[in-house]
Formats: sequence, C-alpha cells, structure tokens
Amino acid sequence: MKADFVLTGAGRLVTCEPGLGEGPLGVIERGALAAWRGEVVWVGREADLAGEVEVAPDAVEVDARGSAVLPGLVDCHTHLVFAGDRAPEFAARLRGEPRATGGVRETVRATRATGDEDLAALALERLDRFLSWGVTTVEAKSGYGLTLEQERRLLSVAAGLRHPVDVVRTFLGAHVVPPEYDDDPEGYVTLVSEGMIPSIGQLAEFCDVWCDEGAFSVDQARRILRAARAEGLGIKVHAEQTARTGAAALAASFGAVSVDHLEHATEEDAEALGISRTVAVLLPGASLGGPYAPARTLIGRGVRVALSTDLNPGTSYSENLPLSAALGCALLRLTAEEAILGITRHAAAAIARERAIGRLARGAACDLVVLGAASEVDLVYHYGANLAAIVVKGGRVVGGAGP
Amino acid sequence: MKADFVLTGAGRLVTCEPGLGEGPLGVIERGALAAWRGEVVWVGREADLAGEVEVAPDAVEVDARGSAVLPGLVDCHTHLVFAGDRAPEFAARLRGEPRATGGVRETVRATRATGDEDLAALALERLDRFLSWGVTTVEAKSGYGLTLEQERRLLSVAAGLRHPVDVVRTFLGAHVVPPEYDDDPEGYVTLVSEGMIPSIGQLAEFCDVWCDEGAFSVDQARRILRAARAEGLGIKVHAEQTARTGAAALAASFGAVSVDHLEHATEEDAEALGISRTVAVLLPGASLGGPYAPARTLIGRGVRVALSTDLNPGTSYSENLPLSAALGCALLRLTAEEAILGITRHAAAAIARERAIGRLARGAACDLVVLGAASEVDLVYHYGANLAAIVVKGGRVVGGAGP
Repeated sequence: MKADFVLTGAGRLVTCEPGLGEGPLGVIERGALAAWRGEVVWVGREADLAGEVEVAPDAVEVDARGSAVLPGLVDCHTHLVFAGDRAPEFAARLRGEPRATGGVRETVRATRATGDEDLAALALERLDRFLSWGVTTVEAKSGYGLTLEQERRLLSVAAGLRHPVDVVRTFLGAHVVPPEYDDDPEGYVTLVSEGMIPSIGQLAEFCDVWCDEGAFSVDQARRILRAARAEGLGIKVHAEQTARTGAAALAASFGAVSVDHLEHATEEDAEALGISRTVAVLLPGASLGGPYAPARTLIGRGVRVALSTDLNPGTSYSENLPLSAALGCALLRLTAEEAILGITRHAAAAIARERAIGRLARGAACDLVVLGAASEVDLVYHYGANLAAIVVKGGRVVGGAGP
Repeated sequence: MKADFVLTGAGRLVTCEPGLGEGPLGVIERGALAAWRGEVVWVGREADLAGEVEVAPDAVEVDARGSAVLPGLVDCHTHLVFAGDRAPEFAARLRGEPRATGGVRETVRATRATGDEDLAALALERLDRFLSWGVTTVEAKSGYGLTLEQERRLLSVAAGLRHPVDVVRTFLGAHVVPPEYDDDPEGYVTLVSEGMIPSIGQLAEFCDVWCDEGAFSVDQARRILRAARAEGLGIKVHAEQTARTGAAALAASFGAVSVDHLEHATEEDAEALGISRTVAVLLPGASLGGPYAPARTLIGRGVRVALSTDLNPGTSYSENLPLSAALGCALLRLTAEEAILGITRHAAAAIARERAIGRLARGAACDLVVLGAASEVDLVYHYGANLAAIVVKGGRVVGGAGP
C-alpha cells in the first residue's frame, strides 16, 4: 500500500488497540506506522515495513529514535471558550475570604462582554498549550453565554477556530441559571429546551447539562435531554459532582455518550453506567483535596473511564492533560495503563470517536505524539513534565519540543 | 548608581520582601529593577528608575511587557543525581503487584553502576527542566552511593555540573542502610558518622538524615547529626514521613536549617520548630493521596513553610516546582501568597540563603523569572502550565519560552 507519512524508530508503539500488540495498551516493540492522506494505513514491526508499504518519495518521515509513541491525546471535557480573569477570586478563596463575587456567573459576565475575535484569540492560546502537551483533539462546551444568541455565538467562535487541534463542540446552555432567570428557573429550562436546542443545528454535536445540587434538577435535566435527543444531539451530563442526585442514572437511561465528574457516584450508578455503555469522564484536577470519583468501582463494573483536565476558569485552569492522567493514578488509583487509555481511546469514546482517534490502527487518524521518553509509563510517572517531543496531526508534524 | 542589567515593564514586581511593596509578597506595581555584576542594586517604581539608576550603554535590558516578575524559584529538596529507570516499578506498584525489587536500593544499584559522565548528563537534563520552569537554584542530596567513595563521588558530580542553575549540595549518606550492612545497621551509622562525615570537607554544605520508621532511628540520627555539627555542616532532617518518631523535635533541638516531609508531625512538633526557627519543607507531590503535612498548624505556630518537588525516582519524579506550589494550595490549604513564598523566600531560608536569593531586593542575586501572565497568582492558579517566559540568572537571560 502507498504511504505519504511514515514513522519509524518507535521503541514502543503504543497503539491503544489491545489486539495489535502486547498488554492492555497493545504495544508493538520496535514498531512503525504508515499513513496516507492523514489516515493510518499500516502499523506493525519496523522490520516488516519495507515489505508491506510503498513510501512516496516526498513522504513525511518521522524518526522516533527509540522513544514511545502514543495516539494524539484527546481531552474530552473542556470549557475552552471564555474570557475574564478569576485569579483574584482563586486567591481570595484560598485566603478564606467570604465570596463576594465570582463563580460561573462572573465568567458569563466577562464572556458576554468580550468580542468574537478576542474570545477566539484566548481559545487559540489555550489550544496552543494543549498542543504543546501532545493533545490533538479537544471537546469544547459552550455555557458562558446563557442566552440563545450568546450560546450560538460561543459555539460559532469554537467552530471558527483554525488550529491543528480539532475542536468537538458541545452545547451547555444548561450550565447554570443566568441571573435574568433567578426568579424563574423553569422558564430558563423552557428557553433551553424549546428555544435554544432547536436552533443549534450543526453548531454542536452534543448537548450537556449540569444536573446537580445547586444546578439543574433531575426533572429539569430530563426535559432538556429529551429535547436534545429529539434534535439528534448526543447526550452528556455533568453528574454527581456536588451531591448524589440521580444524575448518573438519568444519563444512563438516556444512553448518554458520557457522564462526567461522578465524585459522589455510588455502586448502583456504576452498575447502570456499565449496562448503558456510557463512558465515565473523571476530572481529578477539578477535585483536588477530594472527594474523588470512585474510579475502581466504575472499572469494576465494566465502565470505561476517561480522564480530562476540565479546563475552566473556576475549578481547574489547566491544559496539562498528561498531568490529569498522573493525578488519575495518584488520586483515583488507576493503573498507568488505565490512565493512558483514559486520555486516548476512552477519551475518544467519550466524544463518540472511538474508531477515528485515540488509537493507532488502520483506519484511524494519523494523530500521534512521540515522547521524549522510552516508555509510555513516563507520561504519568514523570508527572508535570512536558514529554511531547513531536506532535503529528493528520500526518503532518504540528508541534512538540523536539526529540 | 550604575547598572549593567535593567528590567522594566513589570506590571507586578513581586519582591517577596514585604517591606518593599504591598502585601505579604511585597508587590510593586509598574516596577523596575536594576543590577550590577549579578546583584540587585535597585528596585522600585519604573517612574523613578531614570532618576536613580545610571544604565550602562551595553546593559542587558529586559522588558516584562506588563507581566508579573518573581525571584528566580528555589527548589530546596531534590535528589538530583541518580541513574536507573523506575518507571516499570511505578507501573507495577499501581497494578498492585507485590514488590519484588525496587525502592531506594534499586536506584543505589543503578547509580553505583553508572559512570560520572553519564550521571552528570542525567543531572544536567534535569537542571534544564528545572530552568524551564523558572527555577534558578536547586538543592541536591547525595544518598544513592552509600559508601564513602560513592557518596563523595555523587557530591563531586554535583559540584562539577556546569549549568546556569546553581546547585547547593547536601550529604545524605544516612538515606537508607545499604545491603552490605543489613546485619549491622549500627556499623553503618558508625561509618557515616566517623568515616564519611569527616571526609566531606567542602563537598557539601549540609548533612541530612532520613530519621523515620523503616529508616534511621532518633538515636542513630542523633549520632550522625552530632558528627555533622562537629564538622560544621548545616543540619537537615527527613522527618515524620512514614510515622511520627520524634525526628522533627530532634531536628529542632539541633537548630536544623530545615526539616522536611512532616506528614505525621503534631502540634507539639510545630511548636518546637517555631521556636527553633527551622524551616518546614513540605513535599505535596511526594504524598499525593495523603496523608498531608499539617501546613496550617505549622504556619499557625510561626513556622516558615517551604515547598519542593522532592525530585526523586521513587515517590516524586518531577521538576515542576510551580506545580508543587499549586498542590500546596489545593492539598495543604496554603494561600497563593504562602505557596509563592514557599518556592522563593522560604525555600531560600531552607538552604541558608535567605538574604542572597528568593527575593528581589538590594543585595540579592539578580535571579528572576518573568511570567507569561499578569499576576503571580497565575503560577498556582493556572496549574501544570509553564508560565516561565524569561528566566534571568545573575543578570543574564538564561532561559524561558519567550514573552
């Protein structure tokens, strides 16, 4: 077969496709990979490459020099598009000062007041940082507009971002109740269900709801998710973060693609999610200090666990996805292999792209990261460090600190 | 006064010298700084710079473009010089596999078997990473040699490192009992006290002991620290990490410069350390998942708290010191200001360099970091991210990702 991209010298080619190699990560030692027009066409042992692949003369050639190579990382839960600076609020909270202002509403205020171009510039800076960590696909939620026009605007800004990192869009009109509806939260639920969702069209692929104590109730979330399902949107739910309310079971009953947070989820919730095949997206950076999501219980019930930064200006301002994986090991008791699947294959599943990304196998996108390390374990062991030496997106080298 | 280095455009010049500016961090807004031959000669408002400082025509000029500027960061507790790869052990431990090999002794084995040049190359890579995070001074312990010759060799390798980051050397012969002394731990204590310490000379400035359950007893540590004091070495103690043994009180009684770890320290320990003026060095990255050191109790008793990565191949493989500060906020409940003092001024105090580094004031070294952010709070708020835009050591630009 023909190839216009070829990777050689992978000491460990971590396919995240168990059938292709050793162990849960499907590791091929002394591996190689070939792609054609941005899609992987061949993976295997480098010794077999020449006999099976015809490399075009002008092909992109990447030498991993013995390092570990992984699928491009996938961050499946971010609040990418926002404006405003909540560092002072963060510092005041740590000083124990009573909360005068702040919270999601502060970001809503600042975001509404910021023009499209400036919002895009802020989002692009964040995508640059994601890319620097080896991330090649990011999910991005709206939810700081909270009017029909503003929510559509945030999704449009996300859709217009020109960047090597792909952005997958989720509508989160039901993030919090905006101040205008303080006296009529049900009215806002009606606006989201009957006004916003039918107008989303191609602007988003998923609909998310924050269903929790202090956010939307299970009944309110159900109304919103029914409307979303009627419009053909995939379902995501922020669930069981501040209290156990039954949001996870609701998500499972809708066959949600993912249910996110889960700090207060129970064994029954895990059971329901295991049956519905909903991916659990855990966010250890957003719950530092605890309580932590019951990752081992979820895995024990067969739930696929993804990990994400939860990039947002309130509870987790970070684009460092490998650090989320390291915290998944240290705080959620995941194994290194589980944590790596959590930012590749399972993260892809959490945005309904299980075949397309998050793995290195025939038919998947040629998105990959060459580590400056011999083993994929270093990604979680050498925590906080940037090990992304070369980042490839769609068969082109787009970033990395160099080998 | 004359200057051969001048920094302008500091939106916030964070001096870490309370008397020089606002708040506990001594912040000067719209600040500037001048230095001569590597030493700060003037700090103040930029508006006053021209009237007070005569800038040499060939001076190094750095424009902070409105960003926050901090003292070069100080990592006061690292195990910098080692060889071997314990990523597989890390992964096996997470999988719950019974520990067959590994631990400090595995690193001792690998380090002893590695030549000086390779050891230095590994340490230099780590210093490069420290520098990339804005760190300009690192303390480095021996402790993976555990024979007279090997311990001297590790200190010599550390002394020979040519790198912009300064390395402050600590002798840690009493790290663990080496396998050769399994049947005679007291014999090893004698070797350390009577054989090694008198031979250290200028190779180290401090002597450290791991005094804990599973390491050296309080009585053994006392013998070692007496020998160290007799040789004029400063005292440091790894204390109360795995259990409460009285090591912190021992350190206080010796007037130790620092006592490190303290996960199991009590209120009485805090009281003793407050009286002895010993700096508490806390290592949140090494105790992820808990228990955590009682930082607020220590601070309540007037103890200065420093934060460090504890860079080592077993429990904390990271050079990301700003992340240690962020974890200090999230897990140890420090304020942003306390955490920043913990990696600047108080970290300098933990290596007996309180006047020389870790602050930006007349007479201190011209070591500083220009952040790619408007506020010093971003260093802990925007966690995991690399915000070191420009790093200056001794009045020369030596690193950083660029403004």
